[in-house]
Parts: sequence; C-alpha cells; structure tokens
Amino acid sequence: MPLTQSGYDPVTVRRILDAATADGRSSLTAPEGRQVVEAYGIATPGEGLATTAGEAVALAETIGLPVVLKIVSPDILHKTEAGGVLVGLTTAAEVAAGFDTVIANARAHRADARIVGVQVQQQLTTGHEVIVGTVTDETFGKVVAFGLGGVLVEVLKDVTFRLAPTETATALSMIDGIASAEILRGVRGAEPASREALADLIVRLSHLVTDFPELVEVDLNPVLATSTGATAVDVRILVDPAASEDPFRYTDEEILASMNRIMRPESIAVIGASAETGKIGNSVMRNLVNGGYQGEIYPINPKATEILDRKAFKSISDVPGPVDVAVFAIPAKFVPQALAEVGAKGAAGAILIPSGFGETGNHELQAEVVAIAREHGVRILGPNIYGYYYTPESLSATFCTPYDVKGGVALSSQSGGIGMAILGFSRSARMGVSAIVGVGNKADIDEDDLLTFFESDPNTQLIAMHLEDLKDGRSFAQTAKRVSVTKPVLVLKAGRTDQGAKAASSHTGALAGNDKVYDDILRESGVIRAPGLNDLLEYARGIPLLPTPQGENVVIITGAGGSGVLLSDACVDNQLTLMEIPPDLDEAFRTFIPPFGAAGNPVDITGGEPPSTYRNTIALGLSDPRIHSLILGYWHTIVTPPMVFAELVVDVVEEFRRKGIHKPVVASLAGDVEVEEASEHLYGHGIVAYPYTTEKPVAVLGAKYRWARSAGLLGDGTTDGR
Amino acid sequence: MPLTQSGYDPVTVRRILDAATADGRSSLTAPEGRQVVEAYGIATPGEGLATTAGEAVALAETIGLPVVLKIVSPDILHKTEAGGVLVGLTTAAEVAAGFDTVIANARAHRADARIVGVQVQQQLTTGHEVIVGTVTDETFGKVVAFGLGGVLVEVLKDVTFRLAPTETATALSMIDGIASAEILRGVRGAEPASREALADLIVRLSHLVTDFPELVEVDLNPVLATSTGATAVDVRILVDPAASEDPFRYTDEEILASMNRIMRPESIAVIGASAETGKIGNSVMRNLVNGGYQGEIYPINPKATEILDRKAFKSISDVPGPVDVAVFAIPAKFVPQALAEVGAKGAAGAILIPSGFGETGNHELQAEVVAIAREHGVRILGPNIYGYYYTPESLSATFCTPYDVKGGVALSSQSGGIGMAILGFSRSARMGVSAIVGVGNKADIDEDDLLTFFESDPNTQLIAMHLEDLKDGRSFAQTAKRVSVTKPVLVLKAGRTDQGAKAASSHTGALAGNDKVYDDILRESGVIRAPGLNDLLEYARGIPLLPTPQGENVVIITGAGGSGVLLSDACVDNQLTLMEIPPDLDEAFRTFIPPFGAAGNPVDITGGEPPSTYRNTIALGLSDPRIHSLILGYWHTIVTPPMVFAELVVDVVEEFRRKGIHKPVVASLAGDVEVEEASEHLYGHGIVAYPYTTEKPVAVLGAKYRWARSAGLLGDGTTDGR
Repeated sequence: MPLTQSGYDPVTVRRILDAATADGRSSLTAPEGRQVVEAYGIATPGEGLATTAGEAVALAETIGLPVVLKIVSPDILHKTEAGGVLVGLTTAAEVAAGFDTVIANARAHRADARIVGVQVQQQLTTGHEVIVGTVTDETFGKVVAFGLGGVLVEVLKDVTFRLAPTETATALSMIDGIASAEILRGVRGAEPASREALADLIVRLSHLVTDFPELVEVDLNPVLATSTGATAVDVRILVDPAASEDPFRYTDEEILASMNRIMRPESIAVIGASAETGKIGNSVMRNLVNGGYQGEIYPINPKATEILDRKAFKSISDVPGPVDVAVFAIPAKFVPQALAEVGAKGAAGAILIPSGFGETGNHELQAEVVAIAREHGVRILGPNIYGYYYTPESLSATFCTPYDVKGGVALSSQSGGIGMAILGFSRSARMGVSAIVGVGNKADIDEDDLLTFFESDPNTQLIAMHLEDLKDGRSFAQTAKRVSVTKPVLVLKAGRTDQGAKAASSHTGALAGNDKVYDDILRESGVIRAPGLNDLLEYARGIPLLPTPQGENVVIITGAGGSGVLLSDACVDNQLTLMEIPPDLDEAFRTFIPPFGAAGNPVDITGGEPPSTYRNTIALGLSDPRIHSLILGYWHTIVTPPMVFAELVVDVVEEFRRKGIHKPVVASLAGDVEVEEASEHLYGHGIVAYPYTTEKPVAVLGAKYRWARSAGLLGDGTTDGR
Repeated sequence: MPLTQSGYDPVTVRRILDAATADGRSSLTAPEGRQVVEAYGIATPGEGLATTAGEAVALAETIGLPVVLKIVSPDILHKTEAGGVLVGLTTAAEVAAGFDTVIANARAHRADARIVGVQVQQQLTTGHEVIVGTVTDETFGKVVAFGLGGVLVEVLKDVTFRLAPTETATALSMIDGIASAEILRGVRGAEPASREALADLIVRLSHLVTDFPELVEVDLNPVLATSTGATAVDVRILVDPAASEDPFRYTDEEILASMNRIMRPESIAVIGASAETGKIGNSVMRNLVNGGYQGEIYPINPKATEILDRKAFKSISDVPGPVDVAVFAIPAKFVPQALAEVGAKGAAGAILIPSGFGETGNHELQAEVVAIAREHGVRILGPNIYGYYYTPESLSATFCTPYDVKGGVALSSQSGGIGMAILGFSRSARMGVSAIVGVGNKADIDEDDLLTFFESDPNTQLIAMHLEDLKDGRSFAQTAKRVSVTKPVLVLKAGRTDQGAKAASSHTGALAGNDKVYDDILRESGVIRAPGLNDLLEYARGIPLLPTPQGENVVIITGAGGSGVLLSDACVDNQLTLMEIPPDLDEAFRTFIPPFGAAGNPVDITGGEPPSTYRNTIALGLSDPRIHSLILGYWHTIVTPPMVFAELVVDVVEEFRRKGIHKPVVASLAGDVEVEEASEHLYGHGIVAYPYTTEKPVAVLGAKYRWARSAGLLGDGTTDGR
C-alpha cells in the first residue's frame, strides 16, 4: 500500500458535518461516520442500508456472507445495549429474520426512536483487532491514539498517543511502541498485520480531525488489520462545532524581543521597594544590589526618597529613563493600577511576586491583570512567584538569596517550594546555572516562552523544568521538538499520577489518561522526562558535563565484581547497551588484568589491583574507537585509595581530552567515607561520580543517551568523539 | 467447588511414572499426562484413544462433537509440527477422514515412529484460556506458574510464580496478582472465570509435583476456565527420575549453636597473623585489638613469638584454651592443612578471607575445604571475603577499618565492593549497625544461616542483604517467611536483569525468567526487595527508626503546594493510600490554615506560615486516631527557617511519643542549603527527612508499609499507635 495521503475529499465531510450541525446532533450515525472516514481514504467493510428484509437479503448476497446487521437510528447511540446488533448471519433466511428482530428490538428499547433502517455489513473474520482513535485533549488539542483492540487494551491500557496530524514515521513508531507490538508482527506463525497499512490509516485519520476540528472524538474500534490492509469495522464520531478555537499565541519574534529585555534588562524598577528589613520589597532591592546587577535600579515607593542609596520615585512614571523590567512587591489589589503605569512606561516585563490571584481563587483579578498587560504589550511573569535569576547579568530579582555560580543550566519551576529546592541543591552541589525562573500561576509567560529564550541564549546549554501543567501543550511540544535538537530539555511533570478523572464518552477518551498522553507526546518532542525531583536536579547537573556519546557501545570497567553486576542491572534499566567485546579487544584488556579477572563486559579487573591497572584499562577504553562510553566501578583498597583513583582517572581522561578524544565517563565509588571526597573531585573534573550508589551515575549517563538518540546526535558509532 | 485436596491417587501416578522410567522416556504421552493429572483431581476434556477410524467415530459420538484429533506416539513430541493435530471436526465423516489424515501425516513426518493411536478429545469452546504449569527451578526447586493463555502470556510475560506446594490463599493471590487479572473477572459482560476452581487446580498440580519430584516440568496449556470449573485441555509433562535430590541442610539448632559461637566468640585465632603493616594478617589483628574486642586473641604464625603485644603460637594446636573462631589470612593453597588443624581444635567457625577458590575457577580447592570443614563440624564464612563485624561484641574481624556505631541493622553482602559501600555509607550516615558480614563465595555459611542467627539476636531489628544468587532458595524463602514476621528482611538482588538465558523446553520453562521467579517468591516470603544499592542502604537506615504504622491512612501536610503534588505522586508510586479526609477532620485542619489554603489531602498550609501553623496541623495529625502516618513537606521561608521547622517537628513528635502515640513521620525539605542540617537534625530524632527530594522519604515510608502489611502488623486501622 503506497503511503500517499492523496484522495482526501473534504467536500463530502463538510457536507455531512453541516447536516449534523443543522440537526443539532453531537454524534454522527454509523453510515455518516463511515462516509466521513472513507472520504479520507480509510477502508470500511462492504455494507449498505436496508429498509426492508428483502433489501437486507439482496445486500447480504451482494456483499458476501457472513454479515452483521446494525440498527441505524439517530436516537440510539449504544446499539448493542438496544439489541440492535446481530452478528454472524450466514444464510439469507437468517438475514431476513434478523432484520425483523433488530427493528423489533429497537422499538422495544425506545418506542419513539426514529429508525432510518438496518445497516448490512460484511463480517470480517480474519486480522488483528486494533483500535485507532482521536480525542481533543485540553492540553494538547487533537491527539491520535493507537492500541490493540478487545478487552486487552481496556485492562492493560496498552495504548500510545501522538499529536495530530501525524506523518508516516511517527505513525509507525506508534505501532512499534505499544508493549504488545510483537503480537502484530505475528506470533507462533500468525499472519502479521501490515504496519504500512495501519500507519496509513493513522495518518489519514489524524489529517481528517486536523482538517475538521469539530470532530472532537473518533473511535475506529475495531480496526481489522491483515498483512495486506486495514479496515475500520466500526466508526463512532462525536462532533462539536464549537471545538475549534486555538489559544492566543505570540510569535517567536515577539517572544524573543520581550524575553531578551526581561532577562537582560538595562534597568529595573522595584514597585513597592522598601527600606525595612523583612519586607519583600526590601529583600528584592538588596538581592538586586548585592547580587551585583550592573544596570539601573529604580526603587518605586510613594513615601520614600532613597532606598539602599538609590534615589526612590513616587511612581514609575517619574523615572527619567526607560525601564525594561518592573518587579512588583506590593499586595495583589494594588497591582492593576501599578501595572497600567508600568505598561504606559513601556516596560517589557512585569514580575508579579505577589500572591492572591488565581491560586487563591481570585481569577477575576488575574484576568484583569492579564488584560491590562496585553493592552500595553507587557509580558507578565507570575503572579505568585519568588522571582527569577539570570546569572550572566548577575541578576537576582527575587526575595530569596542571590545565586552567583555561573554555568549552562537554566531551570524553572511552577512551584515556589520546588524553586527553593532548586536553589538549595544548586548551591550545595555548586551547579553552574544560567537562570532560575519561577513561573507560578503562568498568567502569561510560560515554559514555551522560556524555551524560546533559552534556545537563543548562548549562556544556556540545558533547560530543566518543573511543571504541573502546560497552558498550551501543543505549542510547548512543537517548541521543545525544535529546541531539544540542540539543547537537552528535561521535564519533571508533577501530578503524573492524576489519571482517569476524565468523563469518558468514547473508548479512546477513556484510555487518554492524562499522564500517558503527556508521556508519549513529551517523549516524541525530544523531552527527557525525570521520574522525580532529585533525578531532575542530578540530570541537570550531570548531563552538561558529559560529552555527547558517538555510539551505543558502553563498557563497564570495575574493580569489584559485585559493582559490575549492579552496574549492568542499571544499564538495562536505563536502556544502555553493554558492548559485546570483540575478541581482539578482549585480548587487549586481558593483557592488563590478572588471569582470574574477567574480560568481556563488565571488564572485572578484580580487587586489590594497583592504580596502573585502572589506568591502563581506562586508557584502552578511551583509545579504542569502538567504545563510546565508560562506566567505572571503584572498590576502595589500600593498594589504590580513593583519591589516588580519582586523580588517576582525571589524569587519564584529561590526557585523552587533550588529544581531542571526548567520551562520557561516569563512576560509582564503593568504599569508606573517603570515597565522598574522591567523588567530588571526579565530578569537579567532568566525570559524573557518586559514592554508595551504582544507580545514579548510570541514570545520568542513560539520560544523556536518551537525549543524544532523540536529537539524532549519536552518529553511526564509527567515530570516537575526536 | 469445594477446596478440598482430597481424592489424590498417588498409586496410579507411580504406576505411570514407573512405566515411563522403564521405557527410558523423558516425557509422558498425552493420555499418560492426562491420567497423571486426573489422578490428582484435575479435570480434563472427555476423550479416548482410537486405533481405527471406526473407534474414533464411536468415541466422538460418545464424547460429543466437535472433537480434536491428536496423534499419540512416544516418538513425536511436537504434534502440531508433525501435522498430528486436527481441530474442529464436527461430523462423523470428518472424524473418520481425519483419523486417516493424522496417521498419514505422522508416518510422513517420521516413518519409524511408534504409533499408539489417535486421541479423540472433546473440543471445549467457551472459557478463559489460562496456563498453569510447574518447573524445577535450580534455586527454588518446584515452582508453580499461572498466567493468561494464548500469545498474550508469551509477549507480555504476564505470569506469576510461587513455591510448590501451595495452598488456596496463595493460589488465589496468583490469580489476582497478574496484570490482566481483571480479564478473568469478566470484562464487558463476559463470563468470569471461577477463581475457586482455578485455585483448586493450582493447588492440586502443586501437590502433584511435590509428591513426585521426577515431574520436572508440567504444562497445563491451555486450561479453560468457566464460571463453574477449570479444565486442563492439553497436558505436557517432562520427567527425570534423578530430579529429586534435596541439598544438604543443617538444622536450625545446629545453625544457631555454631552461629552463636561465631558471632559472640570468647576467643579468636588469627591464622597468618603478622606484625608487618600492610599485610592482611596485620590489619585483622589491629582491627580486632583497636576495635575493642574483649575476648582472647591468639595470633598464629610459625615465625613469631609476639604480635601486637599478644603471645603468638606456631600452630592453633598449641593454643592453651578453646578457640571459637579462626580468621584465615594466609594464601589459599595453605588453607586445607590449617583448616584441618582448626577443626581438630574444635573451633565453630573458619573465616576464610583469602581468595583463589571458586571465584578464580579453583572449584576443587573450594570443595576440598568444604569437605574438611564438614568432617570437623566447622562452619566456613567465605572464602573470598573482607571478614565480618558484630558490634555488640566490638568485633571487627576484617582487614577493613573498625566500625563502632552500635545499632539494630544487620547487613550482609556477597561482594566485597558492596561490603565496603555498606561500611562507608553506614559511617557517613552514622547508621547504627549490629553486624556487617561478607559471605563471598558462600562455600558454606549463607544468607539462610545469617537470617536464622539474626532472628534470635536481640541486638538486631532489621536485616539487609545484598545477594547475587541463593544457594538454596527454598530454604531461604521458608526462613525469610518466618523471620520477616518479626524483623524486616531487605534484599538487593543483583543480576536481576539476567533473564531468559535458560534453554526452554516448555512454555512454563520459557516464562520462568530468573528474576520474575525471584521477585514473586521473595515477595511471598515477606522480603522487601530494594530496587538498587542506595535504596537498600536508605531503607535499612530509615525503617528501624519509624514506628510500625497502625493503618493505611497517610496524610501529607505541606507548606509548598508543589511539594504536595510531588509527594502525592510518590505515594502512588509506593502503594501508599492518601487518606480521604472526613468532613469533621477537614474542618479541624481548616481552623489552622489560611482561608486560601487547601485542606483535603495534601493539607496545604501555604507558604509563609509561622511555626505555629506547622505545629498545630502536625499535632492534629498525630492526635487524630484515624490518621496513621504523616508526610511533611517543608518550604524554606524567613518566617519559619529550616532549623526552627526541624526543632518544632521534633518537639511535637516527642510530645506525642511521651503520651504513647507513635506514628511514622517522614519529611521532604525544600529550601536553601540550611535544609541539609535541618534534615540531619530530624533524622537524628527518628523523623526520616531528606533535602531536595520528594521521593526518598516516601520510598522509605513505603518500604516500612510493605513490611508491615506483609507481616500482618498493620492492624485494622482503628488504633493509633498508643
């Protein structure tokens, strides 16, 4: 089957939808549904509408027996419950009798039902039963779903989602991505399903709902897939003519113009600046000054003339020069008035620290503020936030404490508490940071705006975000897909277990548990999802330090066999490939290790070996171009104490870096407390190392690999990072 | 169906097995297999053996059509491949023709096959298809398996295992324990399968293979289960008359007698004691002396008269008094001779530190040493270990450094490297430890011996074990099941991803991937499995500090809404139940929190609250008997700084402890670096607290709950820990 999406017939679809809308219906009849999907080239079983038993028999003989009979009535949505479906009719006599039965059942179910007739449908008897459907997700909009059919999909929820429209490669990834994918490839000699035909059907359905947003839910359930084609046996479509509105979006140019002024302001006004210790307006002033910000700082306070040696102004209108950013440290109720003045002044950003908006139920005030901001073209950060940091400008526009360890990691959080955890972890780990941004209620600026800015920001190499929801998931996914090709995007999605609360009016709708949709679409967008807060922080810290691997071949070199086993477990858990060591390389490793040591992978150099054994095997691992990453397992001994190990590893890794060979090296250190200092020494030199855990270093390497694969940077494994 | 295991007919089974053995066969024919399972009361379809087409027709008409025909030949094991199976024969004519076809196909497949006849079998057309089987696992012996039938079980490996024999409650837990269990309960109006009938069948099969160990593999695949019964449609049995040997086992009394002398020795000899720094025999001597061991220490060295101010002896035979333990610090090749002398001296334990035995391929030497030890009744620890610690006796019989923080946690490791990680973590976290034991090659003493000792040891409250395999999994599982009722048993099973390497001669065998068997049987034994090394250590540290919860109701009290969401996620991940707060309790919480805070669960007290808000809500959580555990989320603010929070929490928890109210309290601290010290303060007072992570405190609480549930200690939730 050729994968062309030709032959779309939108005119027919429009005609049917207009008719349904004119009737005020929220669903299509089965024949209408069939016509709609057929108009986009999706095959359905041979069928026809019979209004008499004689017509039913004639149709059945044309289509070919066996057939299915189904009542057609705009007033009967659940046909099976109404006794309106008969299957497996194999003779003309059965069809004739069946026609009468279906009509009688429908009348009994609902006496006043308008009965259009009985659908006579070819009964397909072979093929894999799958479900293809679409829903209109409140976060992502049109989403297409694929899974195995039958009770399996309901019980195991083995289903996968993508943004619609989708193209062939993505559709194929859906078919291959469900847990039971192997069944479709034909198990125990069963006929395989045609992946191409299924992908084509998915693509066509996804285009259909994209072209007609009023198709709010579509179930093709079941679709029967054979080795030559895929047929939608049952079509169920819900419509809503109102479901077409796209959210308001700024253009990327507009976003960048504002965000550049906000993150690198030449002047900042503090609305509600205070000289009184303990006040937020005082903390913000002090952090700006003590943090080392070099631009103009204008305290705004109607009752002060000077705050922290800076001339104060009664209103922002009185400030002589231009203002890029206004930080608000006043109660919520005073914000609208002040924001109007800030807007009139031409500021790019309003940093709304105060709470008392949507998060306390005061949605009206929040809407008022957003309207004022949009009127003046001011972007709002917050409200209900701790503020933000941008270290390249030594900017700490926050009531927390300044942060000054400059580096390539940009972080954001929806929650203030998580923001404080980010700050504390960063300081404790001395993590180099470009920005920490609180987005709070996200009344305006959201993760999408931040991604767009950080993408263009030469000071940022990685973006890590804590979020509880996305205002416009579709826009975020599209931006992330672009940004993640050059900079890793990490997401901790909180509330991921908040599933199943949706009212489900279709099978696909019932399966579209919030988190699974997030999970699939974020992955498809190249986002690396962190399972927990600490993982987000450790990934953010470690990933930028590791060079991008050039291929999948990972080698473990360990002094402790026991660590080797656990590190191997961790590799499997993190989808890392333990290289199959070719004989010549095995031989080469063996020259360095004791005869009872084990080459292969892990390379077990055995305990009690001197530093030279670690050095020689690591050097071999770095020099052989077939090896792409190293995981080291250290065992504390008198012969090679922790700091000796750490120094030799740094030494040999730096020696190869000088030769232009950059490979990721991570380490797990098992030993007495001295391994803590040794781990820090290693980490400080770009080797991601942890004491007392075999899991964490491998998890960070695994996250790096997930990103490198998704961004298409792994290469073909033939180069070695030179 | 009554759940009696009556009506077992071992005489019939013995007769059939003897006949098969006499024939030198390794499998039973289908009729034999059927007779064997029927002898234990397992239903099979109506059937009979036909030797002519006429007999086949007569049988089919007696049994009832449709029928299945199957070739019966001891030389044809894979009947389908041989064209020896025909299904769905609905008329006498089809049966007659089918008989000839099956015979002809068998002849064509293998001309010299001995053909017994054709089995005519009732074709069951309704019921859920499941698989019940047994294998003889090298670690656990007879193991029974249950899963859904069909391709699903092969692709998704949705199958569960238990030790055979199993009784009704355990069999029911298997049926309810598979991921697709809901399908058996009847989805979309389908007929449910009878759980009782299936459990009865599982129990009967498990007794059958226990009574007849030579039944090495049994597949009942498929079993068809309806709402009234379960029928084994196909029976496949592999036999091996040699497969019945139980491993050698000491009695619990023997184990305790030896282990008590080993762990609490009155005298220790060091074979190969040395005065030379850097030698293992010197490190061991120094650690014994410096560690504070108060018993007799006898250095054994043919060339010395005194070592570390202790009189040295040329041989252990020369030592005047009795010797409980001999620590070996000599090369492997000298061990057998010295061990014989140690045995003659009547020592209870030989601690074999040296390597050079099984782990380097020298299995003969290891076997020799085990034989010498068993001859003398000496128990061996090791070889290839770092030694062991037992802090109640200030005993550090190891070449590592002494450890002296006494406490209730006993740890063991199979690997020396992991042992060093245990030591380092313990010291860093100041974890109170009763013992750290290296078991190395486990030539003799293994985890089972340690469990038996620690069970009786009043100084030990929790046992944490790193292991790569079990010498005698069945014995371990049985011991763990007993011990874990009073003391939590934690296991880190390394090599858990080493699956599927087995040659699979049956469906059940193919499904019995090593780790899934371990996982199910360890859980059934009450063992808490840690997913990684760091988890093992954190669980070991935290679980003994937490009181045993009295019920499932967990309440989150948080200053940061964002932490609350992540803590809720972690609760779901760790199978914890967020209490549904009743209206009166909700009202009670609301009196303490701001109007825009959220009661419910999490109780969101909102940021910026003073210490009294934390105190009041925590006190309410501790005092209300309907609440069983608290999870605290702290957000660093100026109003309630980290140490103020920590001190108030300790204060209120201790106040309730004085009243006799003990509930588990864990905490996640989000904030700047001061939260690290605050977390340590909390931990030091029995509140399991971590900075920068919402996952770890909940994981430790979850592990405590897993243990409490498994040990039956949760109670009915009506008491509050008073």
